[in-house]
Amino acid sequence: MGKEEFVKEITNIEEDFAKWYTDVVRKAELADYTDTKGCIAIRPYGYAIWENIQNYADRKFKEVGVTNLYMPVLIPESLLQKEKDHVEGFAPEVAWVTIGGGEDLEERLCIRPTSETMMSTMYSKWVRSWRDLPILGNQWCNVLRWEKETRPFLRSREFLWQEGHTVHETAEEARERTLMMLDIYAEIIEDLLAIPVLKGRKTKKEQFAGAEETYTVESLMHDGRALQAGTSHYFGQNFTKPFEIKFQNREGKEEYAYQTSWGISTRLIGAVIMAHGDNRGLKLPPKVAPIQAVLIPIAMHKEGVLEKTTEIYNKLNKKFRMKFDDRDNCSPGFKFNDWEMRGVPVRIEIGPKDLEAGNAVLVRRDTGEKEIVSLDNLENRLEELMNDIQVAMYKECQKRREEKTTIAYTLEEIIKNLEENQGYVKTMWCGNVECENKIKEVTGAHSRCIPFSQEHLSDTCPVCGKKADTMVVWGRQY
Amino acid sequence: MGKEEFVKEITNIEEDFAKWYTDVVRKAELADYTDTKGCIAIRPYGYAIWENIQNYADRKFKEVGVTNLYMPVLIPESLLQKEKDHVEGFAPEVAWVTIGGGEDLEERLCIRPTSETMMSTMYSKWVRSWRDLPILGNQWCNVLRWEKETRPFLRSREFLWQEGHTVHETAEEARERTLMMLDIYAEIIEDLLAIPVLKGRKTKKEQFAGAEETYTVESLMHDGRALQAGTSHYFGQNFTKPFEIKFQNREGKEEYAYQTSWGISTRLIGAVIMAHGDNRGLKLPPKVAPIQAVLIPIAMHKEGVLEKTTEIYNKLNKKFRMKFDDRDNCSPGFKFNDWEMRGVPVRIEIGPKDLEAGNAVLVRRDTGEKEIVSLDNLENRLEELMNDIQVAMYKECQKRREEKTTIAYTLEEIIKNLEENQGYVKTMWCGNVECENKIKEVTGAHSRCIPFSQEHLSDTCPVCGKKADTMVVWGRQY
Repeated sequence: MGKEEFVKEITNIEEDFAKWYTDVVRKAELADYTDTKGCIAIRPYGYAIWENIQNYADRKFKEVGVTNLYMPVLIPESLLQKEKDHVEGFAPEVAWVTIGGGEDLEERLCIRPTSETMMSTMYSKWVRSWRDLPILGNQWCNVLRWEKETRPFLRSREFLWQEGHTVHETAEEARERTLMMLDIYAEIIEDLLAIPVLKGRKTKKEQFAGAEETYTVESLMHDGRALQAGTSHYFGQNFTKPFEIKFQNREGKEEYAYQTSWGISTRLIGAVIMAHGDNRGLKLPPKVAPIQAVLIPIAMHKEGVLEKTTEIYNKLNKKFRMKFDDRDNCSPGFKFNDWEMRGVPVRIEIGPKDLEAGNAVLVRRDTGEKEIVSLDNLENRLEELMNDIQVAMYKECQKRREEKTTIAYTLEEIIKNLEENQGYVKTMWCGNVECENKIKEVTGAHSRCIPFSQEHLSDTCPVCGKKADTMVVWGRQY
Repeated sequence: MGKEEFVKEITNIEEDFAKWYTDVVRKAELADYTDTKGCIAIRPYGYAIWENIQNYADRKFKEVGVTNLYMPVLIPESLLQKEKDHVEGFAPEVAWVTIGGGEDLEERLCIRPTSETMMSTMYSKWVRSWRDLPILGNQWCNVLRWEKETRPFLRSREFLWQEGHTVHETAEEARERTLMMLDIYAEIIEDLLAIPVLKGRKTKKEQFAGAEETYTVESLMHDGRALQAGTSHYFGQNFTKPFEIKFQNREGKEEYAYQTSWGISTRLIGAVIMAHGDNRGLKLPPKVAPIQAVLIPIAMHKEGVLEKTTEIYNKLNKKFRMKFDDRDNCSPGFKFNDWEMRGVPVRIEIGPKDLEAGNAVLVRRDTGEKEIVSLDNLENRLEELMNDIQVAMYKECQKRREEKTTIAYTLEEIIKNLEENQGYVKTMWCGNVECENKIKEVTGAHSRCIPFSQEHLSDTCPVCGKKADTMVVWGRQY
């Protein structure tokens, strides 16, 4: 099996982005298809990206008082049905367990597509007084949604995520929490994954089933399609009423509480691949890369090379997530391609001549730039490079996003802009769902959000021509 | 709702251990029952214990080369059936998904009871050459087994665990890995959870379905019942043959690989509760306790008390997992009981007089011992106490285990010893499953294991009287 062909086997990114994507996912050993239709196996290299996201996010969550817990994966049908919009939104895409322990169940159980119903049921038992509030629960778990079209990480029947569910004394506090968690999502995606986000509120049409308000962080991929990277929902009392999450308030009166939920998922792995990748394969930002630098000894058989490079590796490995590639069955050239394809931010080459001169060669994955560094300065320079690459990758994404963001004043312009450029299209909007539907119908683009940063582009809606106060961003999505 | 009654509401541990256990689980807010029969909600305080176990174990695993990955929760029936013993062992207790996305499925899917079949299927795709080996995969996930009798943490239909699955070039390497992971389990349970383990091999009868050899770490609970705390299995080629995990060996020949699997679960939370708890409730070893010390300001309303104690808390909180209890709706006495019930290892009381004298009062949860410490020395003394308590709790468990370990030479003695003392009963054994069955039938005790530390107690099997070379430990189990 010729690993040598790996890099060549990746489809050109400009020719067929979808195929490029699945090629990278498989060749870089991020994930693989399984015998369970629509479900993937996340391989160690892909899972390590998820672990880095988890560690970062979990620390941020805990800093703002969130505690982890765990609820059953199976939800009785009667619970799912308690909130009308919610069941309408999710019931068509759940999987049902009908047999357990060899017997038909009296009541079928769904595998959680999300856990509002289960969380709300339990919270209603745990909340009595304002002193029990807020509850700031979160779980890291698997969920299942019976998607028809699936794609690794982006839209898989089963995926991993965190779902935070909080309950509060006041609407104001719950709203604050909704936006606080959205800000943390923005930080994760921008700081850790080096992808700029567009923050805003979803239109009513694009809201979460059962939410009063849904907020989103949207990201733009290499091909100009949009990806919803994380959402945070304000429920008001939509769930606390049917699930009876009541508490005695500070005045001694019984009151329904206010609720939020928020989630990010393994879809973010897909975002990293699609936002940064290129024709050489994966390109990972140093902060989230499972391997930050690979050290490749050159002419390994020459005396002292392996010993010296191992020593250097051991030292660097204390500070960075390192890989030492001493495979003896492939050439340095193959190794260069292989680790580039796997998106490792920096390659370090050290051979006998380098050792003699007291140098190492560093090569950046993002720009391909090569530099010679003295071994004494290797650690410091590597640290600088990690920061530089992280920043440069963010800026590159930002630049692409700017290039792919256009303004449209008419429906024709929306169509034209998307055809030419994909990307985000900004327009004014009258607020009417019929105009939103019309745009989706003729362009295939969904409203991404009503951005927090509003601009006044014109006075009228591009569809109906009526008065419009709101700017919306549109885009075709994954 | 009178939280004041919490401690009083716990059943006496000597009167009804099972009820004491569920009382502690619920009053200490470790877990709660849910509307999904046989499945619990793990509450934040219980989940934090699991997170501490996970962090410790995951670090140990990674030190020995293990990488995490994630496989689908749903397994097609045809995969489950590929290994005969395995399907016989697990098929009766699985839950089946028969409907997905509103349609009847062509092939039903089970929720994983364990993932040997899925892992083996994927590994067979990933392994080609000896260079691809070993594969050292592990996943932290939920599994489901349709138990008839359930008990929180100990035997829940759904539980959380890690399942490691490794594939090797040689039988020897696989066997080494099996025991290496068992050693790590022993370390987790002894060092982190302060519970001594009995290490050994399971008899054929008690082996994992499909294993060639099963190794176990067994622990003894407060009431003298045994709990299987972790198992590690050597599969030989039992799965690699039906699942075709083949590789080209160093001689260029195709060969079936050798396999292991190993797991620990949220059952360990049950072990901590039942091994250490007492009539005051939960008693947690400092290393695994979510809250290592609680600071309770006394006479909070007095000038300077809150400010000073907050300052002390903030300092300690950098080094220990601390809780500051400044609730104004309950008395110090209530707080003392409450945190004792929740098993916090050390309580720190500081009031106006203590502040004047520059002192704090420390109270150990395990012994109830009180001491006065100067504030200057508080941090150091607290650190010492954590170590002392960890060691003392281990020793107490060890002492109880010694008291509850007996030797028996006849079937009558086995019965008598178990009746009087529960605990571990050591006997010789001829190796015949009929004698093992007999002991189980008349005593209700399972063979716990054939301990690695063998003793020669006599020459004969207590059941059949024939020649016996092997010492077995028996005990009634959870």
